This record gives sequence, C-alpha cells and structure tokens, in this order.
Amino acid sequence: MQEKSMQQVVAVAKSRGFVYPGSEIYGGLANTWDYGPLGVELKNNVKKAWWKKFIQESAYNVGVDCAILMNPQVWVASGHVGGFSDPLMDCKACKERFRSDKIIEDFMHEKGEDLVVDGWSNEQMQQFIADNQIPCPTCGAHDFTDIRQFNLMFKTFQGVTEDSKNTVYLRPETAQGIFVNFKNVQRTSRKKIPFGIGQIGKSFRNEITPGNFIFRTREFEQMELEFFCKPGTELEWFDYWKNYCKDWILNLGVKPENMRMRDHSAEELSHYSNATSDIEFLFPFGWGELWGIASRTDYDLKQHSAHSGEEMLYFDQTTNEKYVPYCIEPSLGADRVTLAFLCEAYDEETLEDGDTRTVFRFHPALAPVKAAILPLSKKLSEEATAVYHTLLKHFNVEYDESGSIGKRYRRQDEIGTPFCITFDFDSREDQMVTVRDRDTMAQERVAIADLVNYIESKMEF
Amino acid sequence: MQEKSMQQVVAVAKSRGFVYPGSEIYGGLANTWDYGPLGVELKNNVKKAWWKKFIQESAYNVGVDCAILMNPQVWVASGHVGGFSDPLMDCKACKERFRSDKIIEDFMHEKGEDLVVDGWSNEQMQQFIADNQIPCPTCGAHDFTDIRQFNLMFKTFQGVTEDSKNTVYLRPETAQGIFVNFKNVQRTSRKKIPFGIGQIGKSFRNEITPGNFIFRTREFEQMELEFFCKPGTELEWFDYWKNYCKDWILNLGVKPENMRMRDHSAEELSHYSNATSDIEFLFPFGWGELWGIASRTDYDLKQHSAHSGEEMLYFDQTTNEKYVPYCIEPSLGADRVTLAFLCEAYDEETLEDGDTRTVFRFHPALAPVKAAILPLSKKLSEEATAVYHTLLKHFNVEYDESGSIGKRYRRQDEIGTPFCITFDFDSREDQMVTVRDRDTMAQERVAIADLVNYIESKMEF
Repeated sequence: MQEKSMQQVVAVAKSRGFVYPGSEIYGGLANTWDYGPLGVELKNNVKKAWWKKFIQESAYNVGVDCAILMNPQVWVASGHVGGFSDPLMDCKACKERFRSDKIIEDFMHEKGEDLVVDGWSNEQMQQFIADNQIPCPTCGAHDFTDIRQFNLMFKTFQGVTEDSKNTVYLRPETAQGIFVNFKNVQRTSRKKIPFGIGQIGKSFRNEITPGNFIFRTREFEQMELEFFCKPGTELEWFDYWKNYCKDWILNLGVKPENMRMRDHSAEELSHYSNATSDIEFLFPFGWGELWGIASRTDYDLKQHSAHSGEEMLYFDQTTNEKYVPYCIEPSLGADRVTLAFLCEAYDEETLEDGDTRTVFRFHPALAPVKAAILPLSKKLSEEATAVYHTLLKHFNVEYDESGSIGKRYRRQDEIGTPFCITFDFDSREDQMVTVRDRDTMAQERVAIADLVNYIESKMEF
Repeated sequence: MQEKSMQQVVAVAKSRGFVYPGSEIYGGLANTWDYGPLGVELKNNVKKAWWKKFIQESAYNVGVDCAILMNPQVWVASGHVGGFSDPLMDCKACKERFRSDKIIEDFMHEKGEDLVVDGWSNEQMQQFIADNQIPCPTCGAHDFTDIRQFNLMFKTFQGVTEDSKNTVYLRPETAQGIFVNFKNVQRTSRKKIPFGIGQIGKSFRNEITPGNFIFRTREFEQMELEFFCKPGTELEWFDYWKNYCKDWILNLGVKPENMRMRDHSAEELSHYSNATSDIEFLFPFGWGELWGIASRTDYDLKQHSAHSGEEMLYFDQTTNEKYVPYCIEPSLGADRVTLAFLCEAYDEETLEDGDTRTVFRFHPALAPVKAAILPLSKKLSEEATAVYHTLLKHFNVEYDESGSIGKRYRRQDEIGTPFCITFDFDSREDQMVTVRDRDTMAQERVAIADLVNYIESKMEF
C-alpha cells in the first residue's frame, strides 16, 4: 500500500467522480467534501452492507433514525457539555492557534518518543511545555497564552432569538439518540436482553485539526450499534462483536495485512469502560482508526437515568431480576471506512503485453456499478439494450457501445465495475452472453436468464 | 380518510415503534421526532424506492451526496441570505410573536376569503392589518410592533471563534449542492444534456410555525432532482417529470382520490419559474403539499455563474451550440411522503365475524417487515427457523412462534407485514408453505425454494 499516496487517491477520487471538494466553485469550505455519482453509490453500498449485517441479518438488533437536533440536556448527561473539548493555546508572537496536546505529542515524536497526552490537565501540559522548552511550531517563539478548553460541539439557535434558552447543538455522535430511546424501543419492539439498537446518521465535531481527505471531517456519518446485555456477560459480547466487526471488514475485501486490532491499555481506557479495542486500517498516511469497539458498562443509561429522572431498568422475565443493562458499542465512521475501501481497492497493474491498467478492485457488494452491458457491434444495440433494461431493475448498471471493446473494458476497470457483459452475434442465437471478470479477466458464457442470479450470488458476503 | 385524525396516527405511530417524540425523556425538543425500528425501515424503503426510480432505473440521472455545511457564498448566490425569511411581529400586550402573513391569511380565511399574502412587503402587510383592524390572535389587542424579516437559516460557527468570518449555515435545501457541482458531475460522468442529478439528504429551516407531526419539521430530509435540458424543451420535460412523479406515488399505493395536482397560477409563480405544479395529498388535517415540481429556467446556474465567476455553459456536440441549461426540479420531502404513506396505509376493518382488525396496507416495497415466518407448532421450530434464516439474507423478516396463529396474524397486520408464511406439518413433506396475503387474507401454497422470488416479484412497482 505504501506506493499509493493520499494525493494520488484524492486526485483519482475527484477525476472519476467519487469525491469532489465541497463548494469548490467558491474556493471550497475547509474540510468539506461532496460525493459524486460513483462516490454516493459506493458510500450507499457501504451503509447498506453495514445495515444488512448489523440490523437485517442479526436477529438481535433493530434500527432507529433519530434527529440531529436534540434537547441540550442530553449533552449535559452524556458529558459533552462539560468535557467534550480540545485544549487550545495561541502563540503570542505569531498569533497562530494550536492544540497543546498535539504540540507536545508531535515534539516528543520528533525526539523518538511516543507519548500519549490523553487525560492530562491544562496545568500538566503547560508545565511540560515549559520544562521541555517546546517552541511554537510555526515561528519558534516560546511565548504561549494559557491553555483553555474549547468545546467541540457546533452550536446553533432554534427559534427566533439567539439566546441561551434557544441554544441547541448539532449532535457530536449518534449514540445518545439510541440511549435516550432505550425504553421506547424496548417497549415497542418487545425485544428481550440481549438486544441491540443501531443507527446510521450524520454527526458534527468542530475539530481544530481535521484532515486526511474524508478520514477526519467536521461533518461525518456514523454507523453505530449499542448492544445491551446482562451485567457479567459483557466481555463475552465484547468479543462477539469484535469478531463480527472484523469479519465484516475482511469479508468485504480488506486484506488481513492491512487491518489490525489494537486493544486499549488499562491507562488508556475511559473511566466507564472495562474493555476497548480499535480496528485500524493501513491508510497511505499510516495506520488509522476505523472502528472503536467499547464495553461501556451501564454508564450511559445510568447517566440518562440520573439526569432525566426516567428509570432505565430492564426486567428480566426469565430470572425475575431487574437491572440496568450493560452496553457494548461498536462505532464505525461511514466516510472513513469508505475511504479505506477506496484505498484498498485502488490498483495499478502491468499486463502481459506491457500495458498498465488502473483498476478499483471493489467487492461486488460495494462496487458503484455492478455490470456494464457492451454490445460487440452497434447492430446489436437493440437486443443489448433489452438486457440492460432488465438488469437496471435490479442493479446500478451501465450501457456502453462507443469505442473498441478493449477500451470499454478499461473504462469499467477504472471505476471498479466487477462484470463486463458482452452481447455478441452468437447471443442472438443462444441467448447467452460473455461475462468478463474484472480481476481475473477470465470470461465465461452465462445465459441471459441467469444474469440477475449470477450477479446477486457474487454480491453475497 | 376523514375518519382518521392526526392524533390517532401520531398515537399509533408511537405505540408501534414508527415515530417517537425526539428527546422524549427530557421533555422533548419542540418539533423533533425520532424514527423507531419500524419507522426507520419504512423511511429507508421510501428513500430506496425514490432512488430506484429516479436514479438507478432512469438512464438520464445520476446521484450525489453533498455536505450540509457549504461555503456561505452559496447562500448569497441562491438568494437565501437576502430573501429567505419570515415576516415577524410581536404583540406588545401579551408579548407573543407571530408571522404577519399567517395572521392576515388566517383572519381572512375566518371571514371566508382565501387570500395569498406571498410576496407582500412589510409595509403592505402592516397597512392591511391596520385597515382591517386585525387583532392579536392570542389576547385580542391591537398593538403590534413593526414587522421585521427573520432569516430562516440555522447559523453556526466553524472554527474556534464565533465571528462573522466563521459563520456557516445548515443548508436550507439540497438543491444548491447539486447546482454548485453541475460542472464536476457533467465532466466526470460524461453525461450529455438532457440529464439529471439527484440527492437525498437533510436540510434545516428555522420555521416559526412548524407542525402537523412529521409534515413540517425544522430538520427534514429531501429527495431532490435537478434535471438539466436544452432551453426551449423545458416545458416538455416539465410534463414528463410531473407524470413520472405522479406515477411513482400511485404505483406505491396512494389512491387517486387522495392525490391531486395543483398548477401554480401566473401570480403565484416565482419570478424565475415559467411553470410550477404541486402534488398534494389528502392528510387527515386536509390537503398538504408533497412534491413541488418547478421549471426554474436557467436561474440557478446563472446565479452561481455570476457569483462564483465559474462558467456554467454546456457545449452541445451534436448541434455545436453553447448554452446554460434550463432546469426542472421535482422536490419531495422524505418525511412528509413517509407520513402520507403511513396515513394512506392505516386502516381499521370490521371482519365477517364482527371482529375489528387494524392494518397498515403498505405496498410490499415499502412495508417495514416483508414477511413473518410462523411455525404452526413449536415442534416445527427448527425447520421454520431455517426458512427464516434463508429469507433474512434478502429481506427484513420476522419469526414468531408465540400465541395462536390468529393472534400472530393480527400482530403482523398491525405493523403492515404483507406476507405471513406458515410452516405446517405438511411443509416437512412437500417443502411448501402457506402464504397468507395481508389484504385479501387469501392463502396459497408456495414452494420454499420459490419464496424469495415470490416476495421479490410482489415488491416490484
């Protein structure tokens, strides 16, 4: 993977219509991105693949879709109003603003030491910067302001007046919509513990240093599951979901060597968590977190119970026990896992004849275009178009009759279409077509009547 | 439809897990709603049905998915910064705040006259209120403040400081993300005019008087198509898309008598539009707009061209002409059309034996649960579960073995499941099951091996 640079991925993504810079004709808006025709199909397929495995096919789980705007008390209970902030300071000489934890980590990293500053107080960080004479990364001065905490929630006003009474936040995570609806969902779906509630939706964090294309953006989409279980069983379920997540990634075509599981050390764990692991992917810029899987005990439900006065107890009819369920949270970023699939799939290959072909090796379930219908001659347009219209009812497919067949293959390789379907003169007689596989370039004859099932079976994962 | 009240729909929606009040355990947040396990499936099916017909199956159209946060210049160009506002005034006696256009319209409506105040100046409205002695609807006083315009865009700050430099807006419509990407999409997808670009996504409007459940909410989801065509052909395409939209609604089960098309009169048309029609649905509270279909000429592209300096010309290779394309915009609210399907489907029926059954008559493509697998006896659990697991790979299905078969049918009727599949003792022998149709209650034997195709064919629309 080292040979692919992020610049290359960003350039290819833009030129083929996967991802454009947001508001580009106005010079952009820092760190926003728009998905183009292929990108929206890819990302939708990623979301569908998550929903299929985590909601539809799991007998345990159901879904919800909660509002982005929530009662501000939610964020008091969750700790986001009080504690969801970055430590910032300004250089008095050059007026540049920095995250003080990042300055320390970067400085120590340069010295060959990997320090994790998570959880340090402002005073600890200020002391460390003074003791180690850490300079301003921009101008080199040693004259910083005091550190202060900057809340990362986007704030807006609902209603006519811009006062604190009307202040609401754009949700910084989808998880809390699930927790506040725990009782509603449990009651109306009549689910018994263990069961989970999943959600896909946008969240917003006013990060100071977003970056790496769609890896870290202020506006992003999450795919979160909150899985509720009986206290004492949570570590078994934690393992269950860790493996479930890992299988999902691998079954969709990520190579094992590009993925790793990183367990959090005791010091690194949040105070409410008794186990946390990250699934990381080897991006062109290095290892980056894809999935955070955390055993969160009963922290969230108890917080909401305390703040709302609503009881969050579950009554277990089989054992006649009452308890606040424990919770396992596998939380995945839809944009960054889309980026991972984009990076994983991108390939340049030298063919036997010395030609280079660029190809996106997407799993058929994720490929934006499932198949291209290519008549061998324009004389076959009518019959080939009929095949195209049949497939269109089932999949996103393309029809292309311009240029040599080799050129048309290359065009489809470039956007990752797994199957090129050639309609030739024999097809008229035998009602069969030639299906060419993107990766092996092997060809086989398939009956037109079997095409839908053929493609569907290849999409299974 | 008159017999169903909105209160009834809201209550049923909550108790069955379609839609809950948002942030309910904290006393809610005015006018926000959360979709529960059935609601999220229903709304996702509505979105899928739109995408399937408007993007996937239309050889003309492609999709995009743009950021909610855009460069503020976008909203200057689109006219939203200058003109997207409600006229507000306060009653000095009771301090209540009102939309002055609504006060006038409601007052005149009471007198039996339907007046449309759209486009009046503040002065005109103030004069009219004075001339007609319109009182405060709350306290009856005649002492209003002057009218001032209140912008409906939600404002927030991206970056560390809350100043005008960092002010951004939550998009009030998805359309502009499409217009600013017109060139990007056209270039990368190599589409020729006529072609369209569609998008599904959240938009936000800080409405003063939202209401009617999920019909009008401040946070809402849109399904918009911008269809670009050659100037002079726009009224043909306008008719084409009007019919396409109407067919979509009717094919998904809305009865013709509950839908109407309303053409805007010349006075009602926006200054840039040369034709606009609304598709309206008969909600329990009366006729309400579902779909706005507007012929917007070249207004939007020209506005962005003027403000960004980017050329928005299309070069037509067949005729060697250069022009700014005209645009047809069918714009549909995902939440309100979901509400329409919910209202349309809800039914109470008196059976031959005098029993009442409540049923949601969703089209199978929209039904949250496609089928329920019901073993006739617990002795058949194992084989029935195997059928369940096969169907789970393809659809959202349920398995239920508790209670009499009649009770289990009723439970599925109540959530709108179109097919109840009974596995009986004969099924062991002949590998066939009994499929009971929700609406006709007719039963037929279907081979287990054919079930997937059977359900899929019923989902076609």
